Amino acid sequence: MADTALQILALNAFNPMASAQLSRDVAELVTRRQRSFGQASVLFYEEPLHVVAGIGTELITIDGTPYLDLYNNVPSVGHCHPRVVSAVRAQVGRLNIHSRYLFDVVHDYAEQLLATFPAPLTNVLFTCTGSESNDLALRLARLVTGGLGVVVTKTAYHGNTTAVTEVSPSSYKKGAPPAHVRTVPPPHRAYYGDDIAGGFARAVGAAITAMANDGIRFAALLVDSIFSSDGVFADPPGFLAEAAALVRAKGGLLIADEVQPGFGRTGAGHWGFARHGVVPDIVTMGKPMGNGMPIGGVVTRPDLLADFAESFGYFNTFGGNPVASAAALAVLNVIKDEDLIGNANRVGNHMMASLRDLSARHPAIGEVRGAGLYVGVDIVNRGTGRPDPAETTRLINRLRERHILIGAAGPFGATLKIRPPLCLSVGEVDRFIDALDDSAAA
Amino acid sequence: MADTALQILALNAFNPMASAQLSRDVAELVTRRQRSFGQASVLFYEEPLHVVAGIGTELITIDGTPYLDLYNNVPSVGHCHPRVVSAVRAQVGRLNIHSRYLFDVVHDYAEQLLATFPAPLTNVLFTCTGSESNDLALRLARLVTGGLGVVVTKTAYHGNTTAVTEVSPSSYKKGAPPAHVRTVPPPHRAYYGDDIAGGFARAVGAAITAMANDGIRFAALLVDSIFSSDGVFADPPGFLAEAAALVRAKGGLLIADEVQPGFGRTGAGHWGFARHGVVPDIVTMGKPMGNGMPIGGVVTRPDLLADFAESFGYFNTFGGNPVASAAALAVLNVIKDEDLIGNANRVGNHMMASLRDLSARHPAIGEVRGAGLYVGVDIVNRGTGRPDPAETTRLINRLRERHILIGAAGPFGATLKIRPPLCLSVGEVDRFIDALDDSAAA
Ligand SMILES: Cc1ncc(COP(=O)(O)O)c(C=O)c1O
Ligand SMILES: Cc1ncc(COP(=O)(O)O)c(C=O)c1O
Repeated sequence: MADTALQILALNAFNPMASAQLSRDVAELVTRRQRSFGQASVLFYEEPLHVVAGIGTELITIDGTPYLDLYNNVPSVGHCHPRVVSAVRAQVGRLNIHSRYLFDVVHDYAEQLLATFPAPLTNVLFTCTGSESNDLALRLARLVTGGLGVVVTKTAYHGNTTAVTEVSPSSYKKGAPPAHVRTVPPPHRAYYGDDIAGGFARAVGAAITAMANDGIRFAALLVDSIFSSDGVFADPPGFLAEAAALVRAKGGLLIADEVQPGFGRTGAGHWGFARHGVVPDIVTMGKPMGNGMPIGGVVTRPDLLADFAESFGYFNTFGGNPVASAAALAVLNVIKDEDLIGNANRVGNHMMASLRDLSARHPAIGEVRGAGLYVGVDIVNRGTGRPDPAETTRLINRLRERHILIGAAGPFGATLKIRPPLCLSVGEVDRFIDALDDSAAA
Repeated sequence: MADTALQILALNAFNPMASAQLSRDVAELVTRRQRSFGQASVLFYEEPLHVVAGIGTELITIDGTPYLDLYNNVPSVGHCHPRVVSAVRAQVGRLNIHSRYLFDVVHDYAEQLLATFPAPLTNVLFTCTGSESNDLALRLARLVTGGLGVVVTKTAYHGNTTAVTEVSPSSYKKGAPPAHVRTVPPPHRAYYGDDIAGGFARAVGAAITAMANDGIRFAALLVDSIFSSDGVFADPPGFLAEAAALVRAKGGLLIADEVQPGFGRTGAGHWGFARHGVVPDIVTMGKPMGNGMPIGGVVTRPDLLADFAESFGYFNTFGGNPVASAAALAVLNVIKDEDLIGNANRVGNHMMASLRDLSARHPAIGEVRGAGLYVGVDIVNRGTGRPDPAETTRLINRLRERHILIGAAGPFGATLKIRPPLCLSVGEVDRFIDALDDSAAA
């Protein structure tokens, strides 16, 4: 699987050979980093950023330059949002302990979080990361179904544990996932023609059958409903429903990985799966949940948890601790009080419309896709119309020069990945559009 | 594996049937908790504690009662230590982001952390939890050795992911770990007679041979060098060296799980493995690292990381973020400035001496074991001299009535597990000894 998201990293990553012009300050930090972190470390940009502060939609570098952040989905209500900061500051001075004692804030949070879910999803387990959430979801699904087999999309990324790496084809630089993991192309016309719902469901069905033929029992379809690392695929809303029905008919579970689309990013309710009119069996979450404080979660039905509790206990030392819970509760309240879901919808629509205008004028700017403030833009070769990773990398680095941060996704690393804090303004979108317009022309 | 640490939980856990006398406040929280968390949730004590604050060695409940905390090893430099609190408060208002940009505090921390390790261990990867650290250690060890087989102790607990649950025999309520996980008895006279070093090494050797006979290639010996959930086994210092040499001879790696003994708890340097005169190939850490902020880590040699980096990337969204790094850096500085390693040694020795005095006077108080402020005390039946889980539970609940918090460990849940914040005083130990003296007599 060489044509994967890791290639994207390689493309956009800092390369010590290629970058001779680093400032002394950055060069020094890079040297220290390589000494401590060794070869497993990845840095963004030809010239890595030395950041010292974050506020709202901006990251500030050591020389005082503000960068408009269109990349980071963790600080989803805005970098260092004052209400999240106050909540953390108050709680960290009072109590921070595991949840085998009783304390209030985790229960207040659990109830408000569960209130955003449809009826049968009434239980939550707290973890610290998206990876832990997906790992626990796999444990639940495998225990309940007695199966091992999981279907994922071709360039999916779901996290970093042993079991979750197996269901993350994009993590393999060499080799490929084991036989109990099967991949299907992402939901796009290019693979399925006009019947994306039917085509995607048939591909999932074929994967389940192929597994069964190899003696592997099916456990779950695991999908990120915005298909981030595959290249951002949101449309048409509802296309997941047919695959979900098939998965149930085959005795498997639907696991919705909401680490990327969750907490309002798609501009239509809190959860990406809602756009598809499906109710997953298990929902996993992380990243934006605590606006940077490590907290993740698994939401599911009591019957799935009961089976699990009979065979295993689950203890996560830091999961749902008071400080993480306080941060996460503040996030939920800010999303509501600042109407960030409405803002994601309005500003995201404005962004997509503006990008489509650009696309009409710039041959390198291809299809624009997305929902709310999760937007993908294909960058294509002017001549051949094929994905153009080199041009994508050039644009990302040119936007950095204009103090705008953005990333790439997709199997070729040729889709701009745009997922700013949800408090982004129309004015900031326009600034980005102007900069992209200039960069694409240059 | 019914006779495991989970049984301990069952014994000491809150049981809704058995506890009719809950205060209204606690009863209400328990009801809310059961509604949100479902059946997978565990609470401590016949009458669960509703905590509202933590300070130093004390947890404060809602009615204002301070409890002396002899149980919690996460707030290792003391609950809500002012220097950790300030570090978090300052950083959370300034910047909190992943480490694909450069920022200072993670590098300052990485260097100070690595300075506590012996020479060949010069690289660190940051995670969020002990489970993630052990999961990553398994990935590294398996990739480098080409083996799958892991040897652990019989009642070990190493964390909650799919892969780490397999190497945590104490997590199985039903069934047992898979064939590629083999267990050996913990290092104690009861299993190995007087030659603990030799006996333990021979048991590990036999497990490796048995695996090989089943066609399973050996990857690693994974041990918590204080053997917490097995029942706390610290002596004689050095007993691990013989097993470590054998592991290397068999082509495997030694993974030291320092989630429990690490960061000075054993009163002899920062790391539990140091007491054994061994240098592990991989060291994992978590819990006390950030005094409650979720941060974990894997420290290893550059050559082990290089192999891994060729096959996979490793990204952990929150791993080593600025807030977690700032907390962890403060923890390292407090350990040094307050001489907490020296204190753990002095106060731990006083505690063990006092417990041995009690043991001479109370037939129920058996062997006292430990290092620094990690102490285990076997509770035995007065008549038969066998492990007495019921008496252990009674003592734990009686100590709770005297406002002292303590836990249990070991295969029968009949070993008192004592691991307070490292700032514990001699006077606090004496208060505990008096309370245990009274409780054991009653
Ligand atoms: C869709 C998805 N799931 C899970 C994860 C894993 O999250 P974490 O890095 O917090 O473990 C990621 C991280 O990038 C992700 O994009
Ligand atoms: C020895 C040991 N290793 C690992 C872990 C897992 O740590 P966490 O709960 O932070 O994942 C624990 C937790 O109790 C532990 O005791």
